Amino acid sequence: MTDSVKLLGISNAIVDVLAHVDDDFLDKIDAPLGSMTLIDAARAHDIYSLMGPATEMSGGSVANTIAGFANLGGKAAYIGQVKNDQFGEIFVHDMQSLGVDVRLRPANGGSPTARCHVLISADGQRTMQTYLGACTELAKSDITEQTVGSPKVILLEGYVWDIPEGPELAAEAMRIAKLNGSQVALSLSDSYCVERHQGAFLDAISGGVDIVCADEDEMTALFAVNDFDEVLDSIKGFDNLFAMTRSDKGSVIVQGNERFVQHATKVDRVIDSTGAGDAYTAGFLFGWSNDESLEECARLGTLCATSVIQQVGGRIERGLLDD
Amino acid sequence: MTDSVKLLGISNAIVDVLAHVDDDFLDKIDAPLGSMTLIDAARAHDIYSLMGPATEMSGGSVANTIAGFANLGGKAAYIGQVKNDQFGEIFVHDMQSLGVDVRLRPANGGSPTARCHVLISADGQRTMQTYLGACTELAKSDITEQTVGSPKVILLEGYVWDIPEGPELAAEAMRIAKLNGSQVALSLSDSYCVERHQGAFLDAISGGVDIVCADEDEMTALFAVNDFDEVLDSIKGFDNLFAMTRSDKGSVIVQGNERFVQHATKVDRVIDSTGAGDAYTAGFLFGWSNDESLEECARLGTLCATSVIQQVGGRIERGLLDD
Repeated sequence: MTDSVKLLGISNAIVDVLAHVDDDFLDKIDAPLGSMTLIDAARAHDIYSLMGPATEMSGGSVANTIAGFANLGGKAAYIGQVKNDQFGEIFVHDMQSLGVDVRLRPANGGSPTARCHVLISADGQRTMQTYLGACTELAKSDITEQTVGSPKVILLEGYVWDIPEGPELAAEAMRIAKLNGSQVALSLSDSYCVERHQGAFLDAISGGVDIVCADEDEMTALFAVNDFDEVLDSIKGFDNLFAMTRSDKGSVIVQGNERFVQHATKVDRVIDSTGAGDAYTAGFLFGWSNDESLEECARLGTLCATSVIQQVGGRIERGLLDD
Repeated sequence: MTDSVKLLGISNAIVDVLAHVDDDFLDKIDAPLGSMTLIDAARAHDIYSLMGPATEMSGGSVANTIAGFANLGGKAAYIGQVKNDQFGEIFVHDMQSLGVDVRLRPANGGSPTARCHVLISADGQRTMQTYLGACTELAKSDITEQTVGSPKVILLEGYVWDIPEGPELAAEAMRIAKLNGSQVALSLSDSYCVERHQGAFLDAISGGVDIVCADEDEMTALFAVNDFDEVLDSIKGFDNLFAMTRSDKGSVIVQGNERFVQHATKVDRVIDSTGAGDAYTAGFLFGWSNDESLEECARLGTLCATSVIQQVGGRIERGLLDD
């Protein structure tokens, strides 16, 4: 028996600090384009000091998915740890203002709210330098039958495995899901994250995770294979639902013997590809949690991803499905 | 003998919290479009709670001018009060990263850093709800020969008169300017602000202020007249330099018997008119502090204003004069 919440996200709660940088800057801090690097407080201070004027907005991978899901009209809830500081206030405000039920209170002590320094190159690519701060204090004890409830789907992100109690709290979420009849979805975050936790992710997918949301690079890293054909071979042994995005090649949905391709929608100009995967997951799970066919889920995912790459910022705007 | 700083700004140091709102929202909080309303902490909390997801960035009228001036390549300094909190860190970072010499340290106690809730309507107009917070703690004692130095120009904003020691600290800045051979410019902020402080502004313009930067509405309010022709009559008795913007009618520069019109540049589409006046002031004073002719100052002001209305946000981007 699930409650009225369709999707609960458990993830790192982050405020993005976005600035344009030149190639010299990226060389200087040794940050390759397209990567996400975890940094400590001292390094965060140094990088921020070197950055130009910035803009701040709520971010985080699965947090973006949850915000997008709420903006599509879905009832969502969220578990992630911020501190009781101004960045924490921003994060919680932005979630609550979308109607998301934020289940944890900001911490009164401990590390400051997490910030991701998003460095945007002249040609619009991004590199992320993340200081996890308060996120690292999310604990297994925060994941209870009360905070989790019985949503239709619980969505975890790979980045959760980067925090000290991440593996335990993810296991606890999966235990509660099983108890209450919730499904578990896992978003694989990025290919470096998959490399860091390959074994743990394979274990989770074999036992506890129902739906895997990932892009081609993440899937290739997961099975340590060379190309997407080998990915398709590798997942033959699994009975999970896989929703795999391949940027302009569209997305491929596989469940057991069922498999189909949803073509990408052509766009005139990609403004900002950040968040395409998170938006796809929002649309896909919105369809799935409303008992739509897998084809319709993939269509909704594609619609959301197509929308988000034509705007700046990683969150789907309200009203996308209104017409 | 002036020092190497060309422009020192003294103003309210504010972080903008920007969100799109619908007309119902504006009705509900009784905020007419185009106005700036001062609000207290409780009201700020209420308005933020009602707002949707927001984006945060450094703001403030003269602070935007100072950032723009620095982005044009001018050596600038700044006096304004923030608290030692995350919004204060954002504000100071954004200034320092442009090379602006920030003269005051963030306060360790007192009110939080100021925030301006910028409510953007469906048709792109803005209403501002400002909680002044730490700004109100800027004191006459912060304005010293040491903190002010001897810049070529000291730029004050009308909003300074809204804070408790504003009138005294402005007078002190003008005293130090006279002592050190700096010129004083005054930006009139907005027509409501002019109505609040009409007598004080006229006194300042008669004694201490050399350059007045204002738009047509502010000038009309200053002299309590009906139209721009009456403004031109009213300023006949003053020997100040007046740089007056009239949006698509261009700008009018008057000093004594000298008077000329700089035409506006036609643009295909105004994205966001916020900050047009602040940008104009940046360009105008950049020319002026480099001993350019008034015609060239007006041309630079127009260039900056034209640039800023074709982007989102009120600060001129770096490299505008590079070509």
